[in-house]
Amino acid sequence: MRRTLALLPAVLVWFPAGAALAADSPNLTEQYRPIANRLIDAALADTEGYNRLAYLCYRIGNRLSGSAGLEKAIAWSAEQMKAASLSNVRVIPVKVPHWVRGAESARMVAPLDKPLHMLGLGMSIGTPPGGITAEVVAVSDFNELAKLGRDRIQGRIVVYNEPYSGYGPTRVYRSSGASRAAAFGAVAALVRSATPLAMQIPHTGEMAYEDGQPKIPTAAISPEDAMMLARLAGDGVAVRVHLEMSAHMEPDADSGDVIGEIPGKEHPEEVVVMGGHIDSWDVGQGAQDDGASIMACLEALALMKKLGLQPRRTLRVAFWVNEENGGRGGVAYREFVGDDIGNHVAAIEMDGGAEAPVGFGAGVDEKSTAMLREAAKLLERVGASGISPGGGGSDIQPLLRDGVPGFAERTVGTHYFDWHHTEADTLDKVDREDFRRNVAALAVMGFILADMPGRVTAAAGGRGGRRGQERR
Amino acid sequence: MRRTLALLPAVLVWFPAGAALAADSPNLTEQYRPIANRLIDAALADTEGYNRLAYLCYRIGNRLSGSAGLEKAIAWSAEQMKAASLSNVRVIPVKVPHWVRGAESARMVAPLDKPLHMLGLGMSIGTPPGGITAEVVAVSDFNELAKLGRDRIQGRIVVYNEPYSGYGPTRVYRSSGASRAAAFGAVAALVRSATPLAMQIPHTGEMAYEDGQPKIPTAAISPEDAMMLARLAGDGVAVRVHLEMSAHMEPDADSGDVIGEIPGKEHPEEVVVMGGHIDSWDVGQGAQDDGASIMACLEALALMKKLGLQPRRTLRVAFWVNEENGGRGGVAYREFVGDDIGNHVAAIEMDGGAEAPVGFGAGVDEKSTAMLREAAKLLERVGASGISPGGGGSDIQPLLRDGVPGFAERTVGTHYFDWHHTEADTLDKVDREDFRRNVAALAVMGFILADMPGRVTAAAGGRGGRRGQERR
Repeated sequence: MRRTLALLPAVLVWFPAGAALAADSPNLTEQYRPIANRLIDAALADTEGYNRLAYLCYRIGNRLSGSAGLEKAIAWSAEQMKAASLSNVRVIPVKVPHWVRGAESARMVAPLDKPLHMLGLGMSIGTPPGGITAEVVAVSDFNELAKLGRDRIQGRIVVYNEPYSGYGPTRVYRSSGASRAAAFGAVAALVRSATPLAMQIPHTGEMAYEDGQPKIPTAAISPEDAMMLARLAGDGVAVRVHLEMSAHMEPDADSGDVIGEIPGKEHPEEVVVMGGHIDSWDVGQGAQDDGASIMACLEALALMKKLGLQPRRTLRVAFWVNEENGGRGGVAYREFVGDDIGNHVAAIEMDGGAEAPVGFGAGVDEKSTAMLREAAKLLERVGASGISPGGGGSDIQPLLRDGVPGFAERTVGTHYFDWHHTEADTLDKVDREDFRRNVAALAVMGFILADMPGRVTAAAGGRGGRRGQERR
Repeated sequence: MRRTLALLPAVLVWFPAGAALAADSPNLTEQYRPIANRLIDAALADTEGYNRLAYLCYRIGNRLSGSAGLEKAIAWSAEQMKAASLSNVRVIPVKVPHWVRGAESARMVAPLDKPLHMLGLGMSIGTPPGGITAEVVAVSDFNELAKLGRDRIQGRIVVYNEPYSGYGPTRVYRSSGASRAAAFGAVAALVRSATPLAMQIPHTGEMAYEDGQPKIPTAAISPEDAMMLARLAGDGVAVRVHLEMSAHMEPDADSGDVIGEIPGKEHPEEVVVMGGHIDSWDVGQGAQDDGASIMACLEALALMKKLGLQPRRTLRVAFWVNEENGGRGGVAYREFVGDDIGNHVAAIEMDGGAEAPVGFGAGVDEKSTAMLREAAKLLERVGASGISPGGGGSDIQPLLRDGVPGFAERTVGTHYFDWHHTEADTLDKVDREDFRRNVAALAVMGFILADMPGRVTAAAGGRGGRRGQERR
């Protein structure tokens, strides 16, 4: 089901003349110009949002599902929402998977003995105590793996040295490489980090085992190490690697989504939800992924409160949990919304970092797109006036599946995948001015969606673009 | 003494009409065009040079003075020179300092407990067993340090969070930071890595203690960690760090400069020497610093041998040792040359990586510069036709001080200091085509300097530019 029947009455009430509204869109621009400019002025002068981000990064740090850091971040976030005078601040309980990295290391032991730059992949099993030592077989892609076959792979460690061709196409080696290698008898899989920048730093991320294949341990290695192992093995040198990982699962942990809102002054039952994810990997500070996003969303609402602005509908900020390795926060939020899904007017996810914003991906129909383009003109001042097709994100997919129009806040994305899921995803990567521009973009778009006379309509068959999904 | 008397007769024989030669320089261009094109064609098709570099990086690895890796590299290099049919291949014995890093680590222990990304600085002492734990004082520069004074610094760990303003001005914190902090009673110094790129990777390098100040341990930290510590301390948070380093000196080790040559067919006693340094720091592979350079210099001579080209004077390749932490290889080479210094026609050092070449820095007078510009026109094909003032390098400074005209092979240098002295200075950073272009530039310039009728004259007061020095 793409859209619940519950949506229909709202459409009838609020969108009786959608075509006319689209045609009238210049009025929308003019109608919101004064408010948009107030919001933008406030965002560009804001210091509180970035200071909160600094606290999250430097005083709390990373926050993988199940970790003490995450629980500290959740409690602190709820406090921050209250401090920003948001209403109905609450933590929606969510049981999250609890993967623990533990001690881990990898070394090349032949032809030279040298440590490799590795990070176990999230959800991987560990090695047996004492580790695994085996000869390396290197491949550039799954075709090469299949050509080598069981004879060459059985008992070996497969190294995927896939060249980076964008995050979407490359991350499949991270997510599926272990099981694909195990199908040919491999004892472990090492995967070149999915990144355009080789700086001897491994990038972790989620992997998943396929049913019916043996589970083998798997880790990311730096691009440099992958290239080295592949070249040596390709030259016919016997390359041996020792891998030791104590990764394991613990029982599901108690956690939660954090929400807070500005209740709508005319239709408090209708909701625009806007957020990102509060969890991160267990390395770095989760600054670009996704700390900056949740702090920017919160600040967008905080500024409205400061300016005394209250939209007609409810505007809610959500810090979803467990985006990185389970997606349970998004599912729990959908359950929290329940049968009231038809009153969810729009869902905006920001999960591509906080570099300079360019606008929004919008999974809406043509008329709505035209209308949004007019509204987005108000964001020309901050470079965020682009409206492009497709809009989603992992956390809002459960809403989008049920017909809620989905948006993705988008940025230039120049360096996002240099830092993604690494020790280098730290506060300094978030430029203060870019952060402010993102706050401005979220505030203006969020306010207009929550206040405009009509509602946007999801694109036919629209379940959001792939882009948001690809960020995970 | 800038120039030995021994130089004079050679000038009389070979440079009887320097002014006329400079004026005749278009003839120089035309005279060498066929040979230059043969060398460039060979360089651009060459695979052996890069393969040697791959062996050096992947099969030998890094090679700090005193290490087994360095001795392996020296023996292998001499073999490679012989395999390339060079004459008079020999290792000039050099006693080198032997600094050993040992186990090391740093942690922030308050307000959060998290590991820092550190690399002890070369030649630093270690901490007492069990390490040092102290509160952090962060400064942006030496002025700020002096303003804080002993009251604030005594017993503390000084963190230098100096912004990167080019390698030359920034590295002074690395080289002098410990003693400057010790003068105010600091117990250790942590220095933000001298790099424009923050990727949570520390950059090591040489430091030196000033006489009369207590010796305190000192380490590089990543730019991210320096920014974090500085912001926390600046916010008034009590920041404590635990530092543990087992760095120490061992007795001087036996090592050597490796040289080989193509003897001059008319004036074998006159020498053009061309090279880089064979040692590296004990991290990464010393690919850009300075493996690619020595392999490119060797390949330039190897190609001449393959093409049957023999210049009038001797062209010598030198792999100097201990550039990184002592400079003893350059000094030993100067001693090896002895009273025959007047026969050293030119010294070319390549120690700025092997990115796309742009030409040469030349520490020569105006007439010689004009002549070289004409010769360098032959390198337009590979983008290396620029002749700029000042030319030197750490290893050839002892020659330049005694009047030998000095050259620095120069490249675009776009990313050199991203990788410099880190785990990320690996083979993949050296682009194959750029490497070939560097071989071409060295081959053409080396051949012409060794074959041309006249000799170039060092600039008045010229002791080489600072650039080469700055690379160390």
